[in-house]
Amino acid sequence: MRGTVLYGPGDVRFEDREDPRIIEPTDAVIRIPATCVCGSDLWPYRGLQPIEGPTPMGHEYCGFVEEVGSAVKSIKPGQFVIGSFATSDNTCPHCRYGYQSSCMHREFMLRAQAPLLRVPLADGTLVTTPGGVPSDDLVPSLLTTSDVLGTGWFAADAANVKPGATVVVVGDGAVGLLGVLSAKQMGAERIIAMSRHEARQKLAREFGATDIVSARGDEGVARIKELTKGVGADSVLECVGTQESMTQAIQSTRPGGFVSYVGVPHGVELSGQQLFFTHVHLHGGPAPVRRYLPELIDLVLNEKINPGKVFDLVLPLEEVAEGYRAMDERRAIKALLRP
Amino acid sequence: MRGTVLYGPGDVRFEDREDPRIIEPTDAVIRIPATCVCGSDLWPYRGLQPIEGPTPMGHEYCGFVEEVGSAVKSIKPGQFVIGSFATSDNTCPHCRYGYQSSCMHREFMLRAQAPLLRVPLADGTLVTTPGGVPSDDLVPSLLTTSDVLGTGWFAADAANVKPGATVVVVGDGAVGLLGVLSAKQMGAERIIAMSRHEARQKLAREFGATDIVSARGDEGVARIKELTKGVGADSVLECVGTQESMTQAIQSTRPGGFVSYVGVPHGVELSGQQLFFTHVHLHGGPAPVRRYLPELIDLVLNEKINPGKVFDLVLPLEEVAEGYRAMDERRAIKALLRP
Repeated sequence: MRGTVLYGPGDVRFEDREDPRIIEPTDAVIRIPATCVCGSDLWPYRGLQPIEGPTPMGHEYCGFVEEVGSAVKSIKPGQFVIGSFATSDNTCPHCRYGYQSSCMHREFMLRAQAPLLRVPLADGTLVTTPGGVPSDDLVPSLLTTSDVLGTGWFAADAANVKPGATVVVVGDGAVGLLGVLSAKQMGAERIIAMSRHEARQKLAREFGATDIVSARGDEGVARIKELTKGVGADSVLECVGTQESMTQAIQSTRPGGFVSYVGVPHGVELSGQQLFFTHVHLHGGPAPVRRYLPELIDLVLNEKINPGKVFDLVLPLEEVAEGYRAMDERRAIKALLRP
Repeated sequence: MRGTVLYGPGDVRFEDREDPRIIEPTDAVIRIPATCVCGSDLWPYRGLQPIEGPTPMGHEYCGFVEEVGSAVKSIKPGQFVIGSFATSDNTCPHCRYGYQSSCMHREFMLRAQAPLLRVPLADGTLVTTPGGVPSDDLVPSLLTTSDVLGTGWFAADAANVKPGATVVVVGDGAVGLLGVLSAKQMGAERIIAMSRHEARQKLAREFGATDIVSARGDEGVARIKELTKGVGADSVLECVGTQESMTQAIQSTRPGGFVSYVGVPHGVELSGQQLFFTHVHLHGGPAPVRRYLPELIDLVLNEKINPGKVFDLVLPLEEVAEGYRAMDERRAIKALLRP
């Protein structure tokens, strides 16, 4: 088969690779009807995160089980499955506490921008779609549950979004937009999306944003304070991962409010003393997507949500390099790739 | 009257000062039967926190109301009252959310190491003891609710201590020791106190510690991991405020667990990326003591708890300088001062 490999900044290739196969008896191999490019793929693509030599790419996936290892019990060939970007045995203490993305046997997935994928710890990692194989038009939305929706959902959950809450979402990438959708599902009354990009503002409103703020930095914070009568927001979702976005998120939150951060922070340093006097709660990390998968899959299958709308560019998988380019240049929110 | 003034590192004086009086109509003036030296007083005493000229000291207090301003409604002369180290109107949005130490009209108290004290925002700040004036032997324990117990209690609450939890307390000062007491009251099953000081270990055990760990840094973390079967603690109370103690606290916590920090951090910097992968919840700040005062006062008056045991040195107020010295040299856990 051919798969996606990053050679260096801006250098994405779709090239021959060995077909994945069962290595451990707990593995499964799946055939992928759709995969995509993640905002986090752009860090190494932009040279902002070092790679050691050619690196296979992709960690968002769903698909049909082709083959399972001899120890796999709950997953069977022919089923449609979705898994998280982080594998998990779903039985260790961390998993049982709901933090499967810190599973004691976690591996971060790679190689999913390809037609075939080996998934380790298949029983713990993969979730089957109830009711059998879903219709193809639901595949994009199901694919989002694997990472981008699961991460937006965790952002809202970790920021303690409750019915009636005032929520701010910092970042208008696909995670931020699905953070808006998640906050709406969790009953937020007011959802302020910070965005200066027209198409993204429009989608944010479709997903439930009640206000749009295009100002950033201190000016953005001042605008949030103004919109909340000087109090600050109950819940702020930081969906970027830079010093500026984190500072903005923390300063937009009321004392006792909650800040979540779900993108790997790059160059972010927090002063303990400054954080202390803000009185915020802070929680984040790699989203424990596995915890949310059953619920999110149900929401998609019952058509309560349509997170697949974040895919505003669909390409044949072999044109993956254009998907990276379009996202890097912010011409696309998120690129769907069809093998 | 005479009161306590810090002139510079190591230079505490007890000297003539003007008697406090009503300035704002919302003020009260109280007569103090006991005050004390706080661990946080040691930062400027040690020259680790700059002061601008001679600074009146003391922020822990309780006492008899002498006089109230014309706008004070709920507090009357003769009552016994306790207030937080931070004043609060107890009506602004931050107060209503339970974060009175971030009250929009907050002032941090000073000048309490003296026989008389002006308390601003008396109605919002002061809480009277139910059942009238308490017996004098309860005064030390009641005094602790003003800050050191309220802060230990917040440490346990902010670290989400729940019945059955495994809790670690980093720091064996009076706040840490009362964090142990608080965790015990909240139903923690296992309470690991980190201490290498015999008298403090003993008091920690009296307050409810089930284990003592004297190792620090990486070795301390390894010991906590060992005691928790490699998982880490559910709740970790950081009661020191240094880089070492904060790092130790975070690394001792399981993914998804809770870290609280209640001492003003001095020189603490947190790497966003490191924090991200630990998956911990982080919450802290100046303890919203006012929120807890009614409950803590009841626990003391009903003799369910005896937090006054942290006072292992009692001095006449005029010997306040010796109180600072004894605490600085770790000869005393906490010094009670009697005017």
